[in-house]
Amino acid sequence: MPTNGGGAGGTPDLLPVAEARSRILAGLTPGAAETSPLAEAIGRVLAADLAARLSLPADPVSAMDGYAARSEDCAAAGSSLTRIGESAAGRPWTGVIGPGEAVRIFTGAVVPDGADCIILQEDVEASSEEDGAIVSIREVPQKGRFIRPEGLDVTAGDIILAEGTMMSARLIALATSAGHVTASFYPRPHIGILSTGDELVSPGDTPARGQIVSSNATYLSAFVSACGGVPVELGIARDRPGAMLDALRAAPVPLDLVVTTGGASVGTHDHVVDDLSSTGTELGFWKIAMRPGKPLIHGRVDGIPLLGLPGNPVSSAVCANIFLRPAIARLSGSDHAPEMIAARLATGLPENDRRQDYLRATLSHDDDGLPQATPARQQDSSMIGVYANANALIVRPPFDPPKSAGDMVMVLRLDPLL
Amino acid sequence: MPTNGGGAGGTPDLLPVAEARSRILAGLTPGAAETSPLAEAIGRVLAADLAARLSLPADPVSAMDGYAARSEDCAAAGSSLTRIGESAAGRPWTGVIGPGEAVRIFTGAVVPDGADCIILQEDVEASSEEDGAIVSIREVPQKGRFIRPEGLDVTAGDIILAEGTMMSARLIALATSAGHVTASFYPRPHIGILSTGDELVSPGDTPARGQIVSSNATYLSAFVSACGGVPVELGIARDRPGAMLDALRAAPVPLDLVVTTGGASVGTHDHVVDDLSSTGTELGFWKIAMRPGKPLIHGRVDGIPLLGLPGNPVSSAVCANIFLRPAIARLSGSDHAPEMIAARLATGLPENDRRQDYLRATLSHDDDGLPQATPARQQDSSMIGVYANANALIVRPPFDPPKSAGDMVMVLRLDPLL
Repeated sequence: MPTNGGGAGGTPDLLPVAEARSRILAGLTPGAAETSPLAEAIGRVLAADLAARLSLPADPVSAMDGYAARSEDCAAAGSSLTRIGESAAGRPWTGVIGPGEAVRIFTGAVVPDGADCIILQEDVEASSEEDGAIVSIREVPQKGRFIRPEGLDVTAGDIILAEGTMMSARLIALATSAGHVTASFYPRPHIGILSTGDELVSPGDTPARGQIVSSNATYLSAFVSACGGVPVELGIARDRPGAMLDALRAAPVPLDLVVTTGGASVGTHDHVVDDLSSTGTELGFWKIAMRPGKPLIHGRVDGIPLLGLPGNPVSSAVCANIFLRPAIARLSGSDHAPEMIAARLATGLPENDRRQDYLRATLSHDDDGLPQATPARQQDSSMIGVYANANALIVRPPFDPPKSAGDMVMVLRLDPLL
Repeated sequence: MPTNGGGAGGTPDLLPVAEARSRILAGLTPGAAETSPLAEAIGRVLAADLAARLSLPADPVSAMDGYAARSEDCAAAGSSLTRIGESAAGRPWTGVIGPGEAVRIFTGAVVPDGADCIILQEDVEASSEEDGAIVSIREVPQKGRFIRPEGLDVTAGDIILAEGTMMSARLIALATSAGHVTASFYPRPHIGILSTGDELVSPGDTPARGQIVSSNATYLSAFVSACGGVPVELGIARDRPGAMLDALRAAPVPLDLVVTTGGASVGTHDHVVDDLSSTGTELGFWKIAMRPGKPLIHGRVDGIPLLGLPGNPVSSAVCANIFLRPAIARLSGSDHAPEMIAARLATGLPENDRRQDYLRATLSHDDDGLPQATPARQQDSSMIGVYANANALIVRPPFDPPKSAGDMVMVLRLDPLL
């Protein structure tokens, strides 16, 4: 039996956005960990803590160009040392520095055994740049200064990255420097994408009167990829009994989540209810307290979590940002919280009703350099052109009082790639 | 002859960061346009304006559920009409509405010819949901209201996306809805990545004393991919004459830019000068007024633009954000301006010297919800662990006076993937 999302009363309540999101996420878990190359790990999430295999630096190294020596030999300005070798990055001097001896050293080079100070090159007078040169100290060095001790940055064995960390290029660099080539990651989730509706034609086909080009699948496919998932396009299911189930079951790979668009409108609703209910699992047709966003379908089909977005491209896109993006993050082993910022309204807004409103807007900066949000003049949810050219959504809570130009509102930035 | 970046005086001046960036970008242009599928276009840049092939909507459509009729037949409450058909999304009613007739209509469905108003379903009493039903009007409809005219969102022939636009999922949806399957894009630039230095071992190999694992190429490869380029790894060139040129010339594909790391330090500097100067083109060893960031190499090798970053992983990563990211954008046909935000300092900072400083920092929110920047306690540019765990860089201009906790600073957010 389909269930409504709301309260226990006769008229189903509207389900708050946050509650809907919590319920969607509650049913999702990442797949089994797999070992993968760090070089291909950008955006992926660690499935286990990662410990450093190497210390950084692995040996004490010089932070400056100069001479390595024993501090007891450099206690007075005017002392002289004999240069006995050179230590450069990648070409360490491998002996032990004895009394009265110094080794020429460069930034990043290993400090030779026996040395405990670095004399800056500008603080000496050297008779030549050859071994055997006499090096006179003009400025007494400080013991340990300009020496980066072993493990200053990272110590072998220490946990450098925690389970659940999403890999950036710089974290990949850290793991690589610490001796790793691969790591244990959660798999990228496979997200099935299925459009429904007789009014749709595939991109490239010419729509007859009353038909429209299906853009939701193309949108969601790009969206899923940019969020780190693997999109699996399942085509367009027509408005006939069984079409949706047939398409879902024809998926070429096991799916972690199925996203459908449409199927909750007059005429198609019944097929979807019948199709999905026939799989014997509980299915919710939620009326969410948000605009745009028609009833959201939620449940499982053949054990696979299903999220049914509205067929309207703008509603579908807004719901993808609010519900699908955190769902993909959860399936990938991480969390996604939408990033909200405060901005000044460029124009006033009327009182809001009981639905959380997501107004298409342009986020810019006012003359003082502060964030300013300008709502699009037309908020018709049929207008994909308006949505596509927005870079933010003004989020108005239910029953938000009227706002004037200059009032503060909360704004959800749309990711430049989404 | 190598040239210094600075002024005309005897001692070369430090080159300001913005000036260095301008000079780097000036030599870069995108490749020849190519036609590619929109479905794979996320992050790509349009090489030509894109005009809509279809209007959206293509016909007048209803914005509500109700009945389509002629407004002259609905001038008074109590008027009756005869239902003669149904128009649903994807299943338009194709006749012409005559006097006294109405067509049942649903949101998104084509408004039949002859009709000029929509009577909301809650504003009528209908004798049945079958054709032939008598529909009594309780509330007089307004002519044109709830009808989305043809082209409301997009008009066929209009430019919907301009040359230079970077494609997001939502812009892909717009172009798809407007009838496109492909578009003209600038190619993704191929970026050669070459590390130099005897101190480097490849990831997976065990460093001997004084050696380190090469992480720059892994970092830059992930960085280039995330910025929309195609990384071409050229390996590690050792510190011997000709090694760098040999590696560059062994590139398996034509390159749009070569990025090297290292090669400007003592011992290796001379080979690089000799190697690159032998190609007969002007080469700059710039001392940039920034920290971290040692001399930057800039020029062309065999006609290919070359950007030589420092070998130090932190310096290399900072320079990649400041110079390489806009360079990849320019080669891709777009622009990238680093996103700077103002934040309060959590701790004080001493006066800055003549170099623009990029301090590794954590950007968070203070108790008032305002951005707060906490500089890492250790700013040693050898510490990749500190850099990898930062999420922002505090940018301090040359000669910035001392700052106290609570003072405002400008902060460059590090992209979560970079």
